[in-house]
Amino acid sequence: MRNILLTIEYDGTNYAGWQVQPNGLAIQQVLEEALERLLKEQVRLYSSGRTDAGVHAMAMPASFTTTRDIPLKAFTAGLNGLIPPDIAVKDAREVPLEFNPRREATLKHYCYSLHLGQNRSPLRRLYSWHVRGSLDVGAMRIAAGHFVGEHDFASFRGTGCAAKTTIRVVKSVTLSENGEFLQIDVKGVGFLRNMVRIMTGTLVEVGLGRRNPESILDLLRVPDRSAAGVTAPPQGLSLVEVSFGSFFAEDKKP
Amino acid sequence: MRNILLTIEYDGTNYAGWQVQPNGLAIQQVLEEALERLLKEQVRLYSSGRTDAGVHAMAMPASFTTTRDIPLKAFTAGLNGLIPPDIAVKDAREVPLEFNPRREATLKHYCYSLHLGQNRSPLRRLYSWHVRGSLDVGAMRIAAGHFVGEHDFASFRGTGCAAKTTIRVVKSVTLSENGEFLQIDVKGVGFLRNMVRIMTGTLVEVGLGRRNPESILDLLRVPDRSAAGVTAPPQGLSLVEVSFGSFFAEDKKP
Repeated sequence: MRNILLTIEYDGTNYAGWQVQPNGLAIQQVLEEALERLLKEQVRLYSSGRTDAGVHAMAMPASFTTTRDIPLKAFTAGLNGLIPPDIAVKDAREVPLEFNPRREATLKHYCYSLHLGQNRSPLRRLYSWHVRGSLDVGAMRIAAGHFVGEHDFASFRGTGCAAKTTIRVVKSVTLSENGEFLQIDVKGVGFLRNMVRIMTGTLVEVGLGRRNPESILDLLRVPDRSAAGVTAPPQGLSLVEVSFGSFFAEDKKP
Repeated sequence: MRNILLTIEYDGTNYAGWQVQPNGLAIQQVLEEALERLLKEQVRLYSSGRTDAGVHAMAMPASFTTTRDIPLKAFTAGLNGLIPPDIAVKDAREVPLEFNPRREATLKHYCYSLHLGQNRSPLRRLYSWHVRGSLDVGAMRIAAGHFVGEHDFASFRGTGCAAKTTIRVVKSVTLSENGEFLQIDVKGVGFLRNMVRIMTGTLVEVGLGRRNPESILDLLRVPDRSAAGVTAPPQGLSLVEVSFGSFFAEDKKP
């Protein structure tokens, strides 16, 4: 038995999200069906996590086991010939059988792109949230700093979230300005459903002067989803990278 | 009578190009129909030039005349409410009646984006050309330098081009590497049909080692379309900006 780890890039625009579900086509489903055609056996993909409908990924890790003795290239070039242009396998490698992308993930990096132009941008419409009005980026940076650390993020949890605990560790939240665009990079050990999008919606309200940076502290103290900001729309969000800490480094030891 | 100059951004993916034509929907047509709904009079848009089907624009200038006394905001926010999300008016201003975007254009800036990754990129598929294999960017830069100046670009003219002369002035061709992407910026006084795309296709053949940089000199000396490279696909190309030299500066003089 082999355990193969794929790294997948996708444009989430036309999908109902990563995970197989009854309504709409999922990215996981497209990949599993293509792998089954390639391998002539049933395949189950295990990812590091899910992404919502419309959310993108530059590098989603997902693994599967197979008994077939097929060269790794079949899982990049070969698989890419079987899936639509808005999904692509960027890398495939063999990993130890005990490797599980969800369990071994030590850090997840998401980025959210805001477009602050006066008028909407056709060329960035599928990959950013258009926010009119000027944002106080200084105030947003102060607010962003309050997220860092281990906190109860219950105020930043979307409906339908099945997580047992709402305690999460956020490592960093950085804001970078680039012309009409403001990019918010969020790194953390794990996230609740919609958490980055609600954090972003709340930061935008700070930027627009509708709440002050210190309101984040209250939201982290007293769980209250209705007191937090709106859920930013999905198309601005991308999963950038998932790190596996020392797993692969330790694997090389005798 | 007023002469209004619009600056338009569009994602060309779903259009048959800028210019109204019998097969497929043109960007010009979408805008003219929206303007006619707004103004209740017939409108004819005059652009700085055309773009092919699938080519994008960050800032296409196009002007029209109207007798209506409507505030300029109607031609940005108002018009954007009447057109689809893949087209947007970024700016509207009143210009002298004698201003014509084609005649007054002094410099056009196009950029072409190449994706050099081993596997295709879902997130950039609509805005780049995926070229497999490593490119010799040094050789491409030497070749690019040969384009600069006033030359007969007949070897770089697409079929159906109706230009009377094939002499054109290219001001600069610069290549910038950014991770897996190589951006080619071309600035010139004017271009023949498909000229930037054929220049790009030829530069890629230089990069792949299939022709040497000096072959550009032969192509500029002896008109022969079949000796030049392939026409690079449209989705990698964007019109970045059109400059009008001193027209508006001189207009401010008494």
